[in-house]
Amino acid sequence: MQDHDVVAIGNAIVDIIGRCDDAFLAAHGRVKGSMQLVDAPTVERLYGAMGPGIEISGGSAANTAAGVASFGGKAGFIGKVASDQFGQVFRHDIRAAGVTFDTPPGGGDPTGRSLILVTPDGQRTMNTFLGVSTHLGSGEVDAQLIRSARILYLEGYLFDRPEAKAAFRQAADIAANAGRQVALSLSDPFCVDRHRAEFLELVHKSVDILFANEAEVTSLYETHSFGAAAERARADTRLSALTRSEKGSVILSSGEAVEVPAAPVERVVDTTGAGDLYAAGFLFGVAHGMSLEAAGRLGSLAAAEIISHIGARPQVPLAELARKEGLMA
Amino acid sequence: MQDHDVVAIGNAIVDIIGRCDDAFLAAHGRVKGSMQLVDAPTVERLYGAMGPGIEISGGSAANTAAGVASFGGKAGFIGKVASDQFGQVFRHDIRAAGVTFDTPPGGGDPTGRSLILVTPDGQRTMNTFLGVSTHLGSGEVDAQLIRSARILYLEGYLFDRPEAKAAFRQAADIAANAGRQVALSLSDPFCVDRHRAEFLELVHKSVDILFANEAEVTSLYETHSFGAAAERARADTRLSALTRSEKGSVILSSGEAVEVPAAPVERVVDTTGAGDLYAAGFLFGVAHGMSLEAAGRLGSLAAAEIISHIGARPQVPLAELARKEGLMA
Repeated sequence: MQDHDVVAIGNAIVDIIGRCDDAFLAAHGRVKGSMQLVDAPTVERLYGAMGPGIEISGGSAANTAAGVASFGGKAGFIGKVASDQFGQVFRHDIRAAGVTFDTPPGGGDPTGRSLILVTPDGQRTMNTFLGVSTHLGSGEVDAQLIRSARILYLEGYLFDRPEAKAAFRQAADIAANAGRQVALSLSDPFCVDRHRAEFLELVHKSVDILFANEAEVTSLYETHSFGAAAERARADTRLSALTRSEKGSVILSSGEAVEVPAAPVERVVDTTGAGDLYAAGFLFGVAHGMSLEAAGRLGSLAAAEIISHIGARPQVPLAELARKEGLMA
Repeated sequence: MQDHDVVAIGNAIVDIIGRCDDAFLAAHGRVKGSMQLVDAPTVERLYGAMGPGIEISGGSAANTAAGVASFGGKAGFIGKVASDQFGQVFRHDIRAAGVTFDTPPGGGDPTGRSLILVTPDGQRTMNTFLGVSTHLGSGEVDAQLIRSARILYLEGYLFDRPEAKAAFRQAADIAANAGRQVALSLSDPFCVDRHRAEFLELVHKSVDILFANEAEVTSLYETHSFGAAAERARADTRLSALTRSEKGSVILSSGEAVEVPAAPVERVVDTTGAGDLYAAGFLFGVAHGMSLEAAGRLGSLAAAEIISHIGARPQVPLAELARKEGLMA
């Protein structure tokens, strides 16, 4: 098996993206900017109420894997789709992006989907029906693939279902035992809220590289102070990359603290995937031995590309963008 | 049943849109700018070779119906989808656009899909697997719906399969017998080539309003002269709206000849649906008693909106655009 820079594990999701106004969110009890899990009847009801949509492959960790590949890195993905049309779309798109993806399809539920409602300010509100993605079992955690990668990347969303959580822990053990680095994205402040105790233990004991935005890291450490939360994260992990939207990101290790500005964006169209793509750039940089600042700049660049259009997969090769900006040779 | 401005009949298709370069088209034997029908193995092979895609509801006549609704008109659509995920997507999107759509799903084949390859010049090359859309039978031609509309709009693509052709003729008879107008889009120069004799007879005997671009109308009348073809079309129909890309359109009736300029476009991203949306604007104008020039300007405006982004369904309400331009009150 070829070596990989990053292997990501997460929910395999097809995004259904539509525009709406703030009144629509309020009328349907949605919390703007958040990800809410919904059951099958709720996803059908919301879908019926929303306007025309477009379908684009998504899933947080899958977006990150596609981003690493777009930088020219070698990425793999582990996640579960059904044998339906959305499953075929997901499989096609992630492989066409250059990502290794061999998790067999199946299970009784349909492929997971997320209704993403984008408001005129570019903010996204996600309503996710996990479907078959939660059936990712321990038998599908490909140990050989995980050992082939320098970094294992896990999305916090996996903690929302017991089976996926078990797969998550199993994967983290395989990576740790093989001397690989384990990276975690906290995914969403409400996800952190649902699983705070377990996340705290995990971050302290098993996570080498932590990704979180301001809301997530302050939720994790139950403080209103970003600075205080950042110091806790620094003590708990080898590396923390904390994103702050237009304020850029802060990268902390025991010996270093680097502030990286956000990359300029002409117009914010859809913020879906900003965190996922920041992680892609940062992980690509770390896997290729770049400085923390250079890795952070790749993260900013990838996040800026993704929020300038609809959908959370890159529309232009990120390696080209990075070369144009002088961030890669 | 409420009155409709336009009822459209066509293949119900979900577009799968991806970018490629000219070399990809050449390597796979595709004719740039055309629509080719492909069978199931070919669509699978092409899909496997193409890059990541975006799925958006499409289908030529369906795009026109959605466009009429976006102008604030009352539109209906008749077409066949399967009970699969693409069928659900198609049904959701056309209804969410405000179009009446009650054709029951079913049939053994999957929902039709078109792999649309967009080259850097914005041109689209379509590879269409018709799937269940060709099973549109005479039982599904809703006579009451057709009689409820001022204009019946038919896409030439329907002629590519015998069952759909029979439904096409049946619908045209229903409309004619109810004193409604019959509009036809020639769809594609190769489609014209496949069915020239039948199209000629139909245009001469049954079509009130003809839509064609330069390549289609010159193919229909087998001449290299646009002027000569236009005069033939003028003699054969009550109204001809002939589109010429960036040169705008020419609208001909027995008493009038109007030239309408193309509306300005900042950047041509994807030309898919330009003709469909021109027809939407023109038909909305005609159904609402506007002058030929005003109707043509609505067509130009809608075409300009659609080619400025990926996908053939409007992304902003066309009625708003038209008001902003002073074309509607």
